Amino acid sequence: MLFFTQCFGAVLDLLHLRFQHYQAKRVFSSAGQLVCVVNPTQNLQNGSNRSAVPEEDSSERKEQYLCRQSVNDPQLTSCTCPLYSCKWEGHLEVIVSHLTQSHTINILHGTEIVFLATDMHLPAPVDWIITHSCLGHHFLLVLRKQEKYQGYPQFFATMMLIGTSAQAQNFNYKLELNRNRRKLTWESTPRSVFDCVDSVITDGDCLILNASVAQLFSDNGSLAIGIAIAASKPCSVEPEK
Amino acid sequence: MLFFTQCFGAVLDLLHLRFQHYQAKRVFSSAGQLVCVVNPTQNLQNGSNRSAVPEEDSSERKEQYLCRQSVNDPQLTSCTCPLYSCKWEGHLEVIVSHLTQSHTINILHGTEIVFLATDMHLPAPVDWIITHSCLGHHFLLVLRKQEKYQGYPQFFATMMLIGTSAQAQNFNYKLELNRNRRKLTWESTPRSVFDCVDSVITDGDCLILNASVAQLFSDNGSLAIGIAIAASKPCSVEPEK
Repeated sequence: MLFFTQCFGAVLDLLHLRFQHYQAKRVFSSAGQLVCVVNPTQNLQNGSNRSAVPEEDSSERKEQYLCRQSVNDPQLTSCTCPLYSCKWEGHLEVIVSHLTQSHTINILHGTEIVFLATDMHLPAPVDWIITHSCLGHHFLLVLRKQEKYQGYPQFFATMMLIGTSAQAQNFNYKLELNRNRRKLTWESTPRSVFDCVDSVITDGDCLILNASVAQLFSDNGSLAIGIAIAASKPCSVEPEK
Repeated sequence: MLFFTQCFGAVLDLLHLRFQHYQAKRVFSSAGQLVCVVNPTQNLQNGSNRSAVPEEDSSERKEQYLCRQSVNDPQLTSCTCPLYSCKWEGHLEVIVSHLTQSHTINILHGTEIVFLATDMHLPAPVDWIITHSCLGHHFLLVLRKQEKYQGYPQFFATMMLIGTSAQAQNFNYKLELNRNRRKLTWESTPRSVFDCVDSVITDGDCLILNASVAQLFSDNGSLAIGIAIAASKPCSVEPEK
């Protein structure tokens, strides 16, 4: 009996180590639900790092990284890379290939996954991001650590549709943190990738965590966010490209 | 048909005015759920107003308004008034009479209510508070607007049991904001009233809203928070005093 208990303990230890020392993004199945370990995205190939910008400088940056708010024809309008540290701009249909090729970001399939962000202690600004393919569309889950006020980092999590605002109205998403008898849930309509992440954060249209709240829900520096996406009303689901 | 439509519109207008121009705290039933209109608590009878204190001064205030963290016998230990602007200290069994008499705070009954906080635009610090009687205990719902960083007001909502931390473990509570296809939910165990609100805020063990998020969920300067309290495990429910 003692032998089996020790074996079970060793297996648990190995599983724990596998989580903590994972070097690359991997996708595996745990307890029937897809868990995606997401490392922070830094030091990109085709973008220079932007330093932490206090609130008073944000207007300058807004001009520099102009958001495309008034989109008529998505084929003619470019969108920016949602990563804080990347200056890439391009058309809607190539943003997924930009993210997968330049930032080696995984594409996950399925309407429900667990997003496990590692190294939450890293100094702001830093992004965690995945591409999520379901219901005939691609979605981006962006978790950003940023200092809206210097010395006061917060975490902002939002779901963006790689599509227009009108298309985004056809979906709902849910983000859920759950740990130690506490649960925090955010449900909303995704934003279009044409809205830049900065404006989503300024609007407060995302799940916002103070550092102390993120700490409450973290386990050894990693934060697990349950994600679910659903169609909000009957719509013409296009086949995945 | 037009007559009935106009009558219905007039009734809706009257209901809207009744909400917006309510001068005192009132309790009424709407759509089967108890709605409590809660005005901000300011200019108290037996307490002097405390000014907005930036983060760097909070240690001084903590010493001044010492929290009772290590409670052995609640009969012998006093707790502070949860209101930011009140210096009252007293024993557990008299805190409800202090709140109802000195601050004219209502006691509501039932496990589910809607807390409708008015005048959200008022400058920090400001509190909205109700006493909630259910499951054989009294609970306090405290909503505080405070500037942890000067010029950056946030809203903090927490449920506190008028009892010990051990008793609080027998309950769960849920706070829910719901508006314009967005929903934000916080579920947790209540904190004991022996923990002061400052420490709950510092721990991040509460629902936290940035000003922009509060704005998204507000309607004409009022914020509706759905509240539900439940027993988390079988416990000896004492009769209400």
